[in-house]
Amino acid sequence: MSQDSRVVTDGFDKPLSSDELVIFNRWWRAANYLSVGQIYLLTNPLLREPLKLEHTKPRLLGHWGTTPGINFIWLHLNRVIKQLDQNILLICGPGHGAPGILASTWMERTYSEYFPDITQDEAGIERLFRQFSFPGGVPSHAAATTPGSIHEGGELGYSLSHAYGAAFDNPGLVVACIIGDGEAETGPLATSWHSNKFLDPIRDGAVLPILHLNGYKIANPTVLARIPYSELEALLRGYGYDPVFVEGDEPDLMHQAMAAAMDKAFTLIRSVQAEARSSGTSKSRPVWPMIVLKSPKGWTGPKTVDGLRTEGYWRSHQVPVSELAKGDHLAILERWMRSYRPEELFDEDGRLHSDIRMLAPSDRKRMSASPYANGGLLRHPLRLPDFSGHALDVSSPGQTTGEATRILGTWLRDVMTANLDQANFRIWSPDENNSNRLNAVLDATNRAWDAERYDYDDHLASDGRVMEILSEHTCQGWLEGYLLTGRHGLFSCYEAFVRIVDSMVNQHAKWLKTSREVPWRQPVSSLNYLITSHVWRQDHNGFSHQDPGFLDHIATKKGEVSRIYLPPDANTLLCTADHCLRSCDTLNVIVAGKQPELQWLDMDAAIAHFSKGLGIWEWASNDKGEEPDAVIACAGDVPTLEALAAVKLLREHIPDVKLRVINIIDLMKLQLPEQHPHGLPNDIFDLLFTVDRPVIFAFHGYPSLIHRLVYKRTNAANFHVHGYQEEGTTTTPFDMTVLNELDRFHLVANIVRRIPRLTIRAAYVGEAVLDKLVEHKRYIHKYGEDMPEIRNWTWS
Amino acid sequence: MSQDSRVVTDGFDKPLSSDELVIFNRWWRAANYLSVGQIYLLTNPLLREPLKLEHTKPRLLGHWGTTPGINFIWLHLNRVIKQLDQNILLICGPGHGAPGILASTWMERTYSEYFPDITQDEAGIERLFRQFSFPGGVPSHAAATTPGSIHEGGELGYSLSHAYGAAFDNPGLVVACIIGDGEAETGPLATSWHSNKFLDPIRDGAVLPILHLNGYKIANPTVLARIPYSELEALLRGYGYDPVFVEGDEPDLMHQAMAAAMDKAFTLIRSVQAEARSSGTSKSRPVWPMIVLKSPKGWTGPKTVDGLRTEGYWRSHQVPVSELAKGDHLAILERWMRSYRPEELFDEDGRLHSDIRMLAPSDRKRMSASPYANGGLLRHPLRLPDFSGHALDVSSPGQTTGEATRILGTWLRDVMTANLDQANFRIWSPDENNSNRLNAVLDATNRAWDAERYDYDDHLASDGRVMEILSEHTCQGWLEGYLLTGRHGLFSCYEAFVRIVDSMVNQHAKWLKTSREVPWRQPVSSLNYLITSHVWRQDHNGFSHQDPGFLDHIATKKGEVSRIYLPPDANTLLCTADHCLRSCDTLNVIVAGKQPELQWLDMDAAIAHFSKGLGIWEWASNDKGEEPDAVIACAGDVPTLEALAAVKLLREHIPDVKLRVINIIDLMKLQLPEQHPHGLPNDIFDLLFTVDRPVIFAFHGYPSLIHRLVYKRTNAANFHVHGYQEEGTTTTPFDMTVLNELDRFHLVANIVRRIPRLTIRAAYVGEAVLDKLVEHKRYIHKYGEDMPEIRNWTWS
Repeated sequence: MSQDSRVVTDGFDKPLSSDELVIFNRWWRAANYLSVGQIYLLTNPLLREPLKLEHTKPRLLGHWGTTPGINFIWLHLNRVIKQLDQNILLICGPGHGAPGILASTWMERTYSEYFPDITQDEAGIERLFRQFSFPGGVPSHAAATTPGSIHEGGELGYSLSHAYGAAFDNPGLVVACIIGDGEAETGPLATSWHSNKFLDPIRDGAVLPILHLNGYKIANPTVLARIPYSELEALLRGYGYDPVFVEGDEPDLMHQAMAAAMDKAFTLIRSVQAEARSSGTSKSRPVWPMIVLKSPKGWTGPKTVDGLRTEGYWRSHQVPVSELAKGDHLAILERWMRSYRPEELFDEDGRLHSDIRMLAPSDRKRMSASPYANGGLLRHPLRLPDFSGHALDVSSPGQTTGEATRILGTWLRDVMTANLDQANFRIWSPDENNSNRLNAVLDATNRAWDAERYDYDDHLASDGRVMEILSEHTCQGWLEGYLLTGRHGLFSCYEAFVRIVDSMVNQHAKWLKTSREVPWRQPVSSLNYLITSHVWRQDHNGFSHQDPGFLDHIATKKGEVSRIYLPPDANTLLCTADHCLRSCDTLNVIVAGKQPELQWLDMDAAIAHFSKGLGIWEWASNDKGEEPDAVIACAGDVPTLEALAAVKLLREHIPDVKLRVINIIDLMKLQLPEQHPHGLPNDIFDLLFTVDRPVIFAFHGYPSLIHRLVYKRTNAANFHVHGYQEEGTTTTPFDMTVLNELDRFHLVANIVRRIPRLTIRAAYVGEAVLDKLVEHKRYIHKYGEDMPEIRNWTWS
Repeated sequence: MSQDSRVVTDGFDKPLSSDELVIFNRWWRAANYLSVGQIYLLTNPLLREPLKLEHTKPRLLGHWGTTPGINFIWLHLNRVIKQLDQNILLICGPGHGAPGILASTWMERTYSEYFPDITQDEAGIERLFRQFSFPGGVPSHAAATTPGSIHEGGELGYSLSHAYGAAFDNPGLVVACIIGDGEAETGPLATSWHSNKFLDPIRDGAVLPILHLNGYKIANPTVLARIPYSELEALLRGYGYDPVFVEGDEPDLMHQAMAAAMDKAFTLIRSVQAEARSSGTSKSRPVWPMIVLKSPKGWTGPKTVDGLRTEGYWRSHQVPVSELAKGDHLAILERWMRSYRPEELFDEDGRLHSDIRMLAPSDRKRMSASPYANGGLLRHPLRLPDFSGHALDVSSPGQTTGEATRILGTWLRDVMTANLDQANFRIWSPDENNSNRLNAVLDATNRAWDAERYDYDDHLASDGRVMEILSEHTCQGWLEGYLLTGRHGLFSCYEAFVRIVDSMVNQHAKWLKTSREVPWRQPVSSLNYLITSHVWRQDHNGFSHQDPGFLDHIATKKGEVSRIYLPPDANTLLCTADHCLRSCDTLNVIVAGKQPELQWLDMDAAIAHFSKGLGIWEWASNDKGEEPDAVIACAGDVPTLEALAAVKLLREHIPDVKLRVINIIDLMKLQLPEQHPHGLPNDIFDLLFTVDRPVIFAFHGYPSLIHRLVYKRTNAANFHVHGYQEEGTTTTPFDMTVLNELDRFHLVANIVRRIPRLTIRAAYVGEAVLDKLVEHKRYIHKYGEDMPEIRNWTWS
C-alpha cells in the first residue's frame, strides 16, 4: 500500500479462530455494503435486480474514504466489549464517516429502536439509504441526531480532547477515539495528546486513541503518513503512549492483527488501572496504550476509476466513482457493491443473518446505545449551597470595594466540596485559575496533574478537579466531553483569549440547537464561561490582551442557546453563577472583573435585580417617575462605575437635570421576545427606555453590539453607545476608559449634548470636562497612576 | 534546579576562552540589569545613590521570569552573527519578555537610532526605564513599536509558524525562534513543529527553534518540563528535529554549553544547506537542529521573597518582589540589582563600556535592526498581469453560468508565473486549494511538500508555492510571517472554518493598526482571505460547515485595517482580487462562491461597479430615476441571485411595481465616512437608498451585521434584511436559502408586504409564494434535488 509498507501484522498472535475470521469478515462486508448503499442508492437496496441509473441518487454526497476503517474498528471494539464485558464509548474524529457509523448502528438494531421507521428489513434498509444526505433526511456527518455520538462531524481536531473529557470521573469506561490523520495535523489535536498528563488512573476511565493513518486528506497526503515509522513512533512515545502498529490491506491478516492489538491494549489498560487502584495512589504517570491503524483510504473500494488510482489514494476521500451515467461508472459501482456479496449477508426479508447479528453487544453495552453518549440520562443536578452566605456586605451603594471573582471563588469552593462525593464537577482554565482569583477553590481540591511532581509544588495532585493546561482548545474540548456525558463545569478565561475557541463554540452551539430538536436527547448542563481579566482591566498587559468580541460572537447564535450576563458587582455575580450552574442546554457567558471595584447591591437587591435581568436603579435616578431628560444605561462593571460617576458629576454641574439610570445584567433582554426567549416585551421596553429621550449607554463591549440588539426598538435611533473602540495600550485603568471614550467625562459631555434644553449649558460643562481630561493625562504621564480623585472615587 | 536535573553542559566542548567568558558575563549582567531597571525604576537608574522608594514606579508591571533566558539567547546569537557573518531574525515567542528585548536593543544602539531621545547615557537609560509599562510609554510586550520584532506579544502559540513564514524564500536567513514552554502547550504551537515538512533547504532559509524550558507558567509547571528527558527527546525527534540540550544555572558552564550548542546547530544548518544546494535537488527531508535550553525561571533573580521560593519557580513569572514598601522588599530589590554590579558595566556618563558594546553586530546584521523585521523595506510589489484577459464573456446579465473561483484560479496561475523569479508570492489553504477550485495554480507551481513523496503523487515538490497543511492556524501563522517580512500571499479557506483563526486575526489587526502609527514601519502587503465554499453552498456538508460570522468579526476591527468584499460574480471577483493584491496594511476578506452560478457583469461593467463599491443595477431596475416603491439591495453571489429572481417574480405578478436594485461589493461603503474610510457620504447614501422607502436587503451573512453597519443612516429603520439565520442541514442548494428565508419567494412576500400601496395585492402574492414553497419541499423530498425551474432559472 505504501512504498515503505511493512506488514506489522506478521509479528502478532493470531487470536481469531478460522470460524471467527469468517464471521468477522461477514460483519465487515455488511457494514461496508450498507455504507456504500447510503451514499449511492435510492431503491433496489439489496441489489435484487441489476443496478440501473434510476436506482441511484441524483446528488452523490458522503465520505467513503474513512468509512471502511471505521467499520473495521467498530467491529473489533465490539469483540472487546463482548469478551471483557467492557463499557466503551466511541468518539469518531472523522465525523464525515457517518455512513459507517449509521451502518453499524443499524446492524446493532439501535437505529431501528431510535427511529422505528428504519426497520430491520429490506424496506428499512431502503429508508436508511434514502435518508442519508437527502433533503429531509440525515446529514452526511455525525451529529446530535446520531445515536451513540457526542461528537459533531465537520470541523476537525477535537476528538481526543472530547474523549478525555468523557473519561474523566468515569472509572469504568474506556473511551475509544478514532483520530483521522488529517485531523491529526490540526493544532488542537496535536496538543491534546498531552491530555494523558491530566488523567488519574484511579478515578478516571481510560482513553484508547486509535490513530487511523489512511494516508490522505481531500487532495493531499497526510503528514503523519509520510514520515518514517521511526519518527512516528518517537512522536507517539514522546506524547507518552505505547503504540501498537497494525498495517496492511489483506482482511484476514488485518483482523488477526487488530484483534491482537486490541487484546494488548486492553490488557495494558486493565493492568495499569489494577495496579494504581490496588495501591490506592498514583505514584508515577502510566504509559497508556494506543493503536496506529494504517489501512488504505477507501479500503475495498474501486482500485481505479477512469484509469486513475482510487483505492489507497485521495480520490477515495468522498465519492470514489461519480457521474454514474458516464462510461463504465455504473458497472464499477455495481461490481463494487456486489463484491460484498449482499445475498450472503441478508436474508430474504433483508434481515441481517443471525450469525452476523450475534457479534453485536447487547443493550446499553452497544456503543450505538451507550448512555454516556446521551449524557442527560446520567446527569445528576449539581448540589448548590446557598450563595447568600457569601454575600458581600453592601450597606449603601458604591462605597465599599470588593473583588467579584474572588468572592465567587469562595462559593465555588463550597460547590466543589458539596459535590466531591458525586464526582461530577470540575473547573477549567488555561493556567488562569489564580490569576482570575478563584484561588479559594484550591482549598477544596487540587489542580489535576499526573506529570512529574516535586515536593515544593503548589496544589498539584493526580485527582485534582481544577483543570489547567495552557491550551484554551484543550480546556474547551475536555469540558464539552465532560458536559455531554452528563456532568457540570465552569471555564474561566481571559476575555481576549477566549476567542481562541470561537470556532469550537460554534460547533457546540450547533450541537445544542440540534439536540433540542431530538426527542431522545436528554438535556445536558450548560457550558458556562466566566470571562474575566476583561478588556477594561488589561491596562497592565496592553492592547494585545484587549478584545471584547466574544460577546458579539455569542450573540449571533440562536436565541435558544445563547446567554450573556454582565453582573455589575460581587453579589449579582453570585446570583448569576448560581443560575448558570443550574441551567441546561445553553451557552452562558458571564463577564465579571477580578479587580477591586465598587459594590452596588446588597444580596436582596442583587437577587431582585438579577431576576428581572435589567432595571432602574432608583437610588441613582432622580426622575421620580416622570419622563427623564435622559436615560443612562450601563452594562458591565467598569461601564457601571463610569456611568454612575458621570451621573454624579452631572448632578453637581446641573442640579435640575432629570436622569434615569438603568443597569442591564442580562444583555438579551434588549432583544425582542421573538428574537430571544429573554427579550423584553416592547411596551415594557418603551416604558423603561422611553420612546424619544436620549439613551446614553455605557457598555462593556463593542458599541455596535448594542445597536444591533436594539435596532427594532421604538427608541433605537436615540441610543448613543460608549464602549470598546479598539483603542488601548499599557496605561492606567482609568486611562483605558478615556482612550475609548467610555470614561465619566466623555459620558457627561455626550449626555449634556443630547438634552435639548441643556444645549447652552453644554458648552460650559464641555469645557469643564475637557479640563479634567487634560489634568488626567498630565497626571498619569507624571506619576504613572490615576489621580487620587479617580482612584478613591465613591458614589456617596 | 529540578529533581532530575542533569548538567548536560558537561558533555560539551568549551568553545569560549576565559576572556570571552568574562565579557559574555558582562554583557549578560548589563542586559539583565537594564531589564530589571525597566520593571522597577523611575529615577536613579544606575544606582548612583542608595535605592529609595521614590525611585521606583508606583505600578510594577512586566514579566521578569522569561527575560534572563531571552537575554542569554540573544547574546549567543550575536556571537554566531559575528563569527559567521550570519543574517539572523529573532522571533521571540515569550512576547512579554519585552524588558529583555528592549534592553538588548538599547545595548546594540538600535533603540537610540529609532528613538533618539532614548540616548546612550544615563539620561537615556532613565527614559528607557521610565517609558516601560508607563502611561504614554511602551507596552510590556513586544509590539509593532519594538524594532527588530515582527511578533506581537500577548496571545501565545504562533512563534514557530511565524518563524517558518519568515524563512520561506529567504535562503540566506536563519530565523531563530524562542519558544516558551508555556506557549508550547498551545495547539497551534504543537502542530507548527511539523512546518519542517514544508521547508525547502535549497530555496528557503532555516529555522532554529530554541525551546526555552524554564519550567513554569503563571502559576503552574509546564508539561514539557515535567516529562522525562527520554520522552521530550523522543517527542522532538518525532517532530523531525535533532535536539541539543543545554541545562543548568551556573553561568560560566551555561555560556560554554550554549556556545557549543549554537556551534553544533549552525554547523548542521550549513551542512544541510550546502549538501542540498550543491546537489541542486532535495532528495530527502533533512533533520534540522534545535536547542532545548533548560534554565531557572527568573534566573539570577531573588532566590526567595518573604521566605517563599522565587527563582526557579512560578513566583518569578511577573514581578518577583513587589509591594516595595513592605518589610525588606526594597532591600531585596537593591541587592538584586547591585548583584549585576552596574558600576562595572556603565561608564561615568552611563554609556556601556566599549568591551561590552563590541559584542554587538554592526548595522543591519543586528537582530534589533534587521530589515527582515521591517518587511516593507524589502517588499517588491507583485507583478500583476492584466486580469481582463481572464474575463468571462457575459453578453447579457444572468444568462450564462461560471465558477468564480475557478476563473480566479487561472489569473492566479498567471500571477504565480509572473512572480516566480522574484520568489515572493505563495498561496495558502488548509488542504482546500483544489476543493476551492484554484486548481489552475498548480499548472504554474506545485504544493510544497518535503515529507516522503511517491511517484504517483499529485503536484508535490519541495519547492512548491501552494502551502497546504490541515491547520488553519499554521496557514495563518506562515502567511503572517511571510507578509511581515515583505512578501505577498493569499489564504483561501472554507468560510465556516476560517473562524478557527479569529483570534490570530485579532492579533494581526492590532499589529497593523499599531504599525500605521509607527513612522519607521514601512507598509506591508495586506493579508488577503478568499472565503469560499461559503455557507450557502454547504448544502452537501450540512449545518456543521455553516457560519458566516467571520464578516462580523472583521467588522469589529478598526476601519483603517478592515475590508470586506462580496463580488457577485467572476468578473467582479477578478477586479477585487487584483485590488487586494496591490493593497497594503489591511485585512481583506473576499467572499466568493466556487459553484457554477449565473454571471451578471461583463468586464467593463465589473470594473465600473467595483470601483464604486456599490451601485444601482439599472438593467435590473425599473424606477427610471423616480422614487421606487422599494429598494432591493443585495450583497453576495447567492443573495444576488435570489434578489434578482425575486425582482423578476414581482414584476410578473405586479407589472407596475417600481423597484431599484442595488448591489454591494464593498460592504464598508454602508458605514459612515467617519466610521470607515470607505464609508459613503450620507447624502449619496440617501439618494441611493432613499430616506423613506423600504429596503429589502438580501445578504450573505447574519442580518444583524447590516443593521449595525447602517444604524446611523437616515433610512435605517426601513432596512429589512434577509440572511443567514443559523438554519441548515444537508439538503439542496436552494433549500438552504429557503431554510433561512433568503430565497426568492420569502423575499417577494416581504417586499410586497412593505409597499403600502400593494397591501391588498400582497395577500394574493403571498398565497402564490406559499404554494411555490410547498411545491419546492414536495419536490426535493421526492427527487433529492431542486426543481428544474429553480436549477435552470435565468434572468432573461
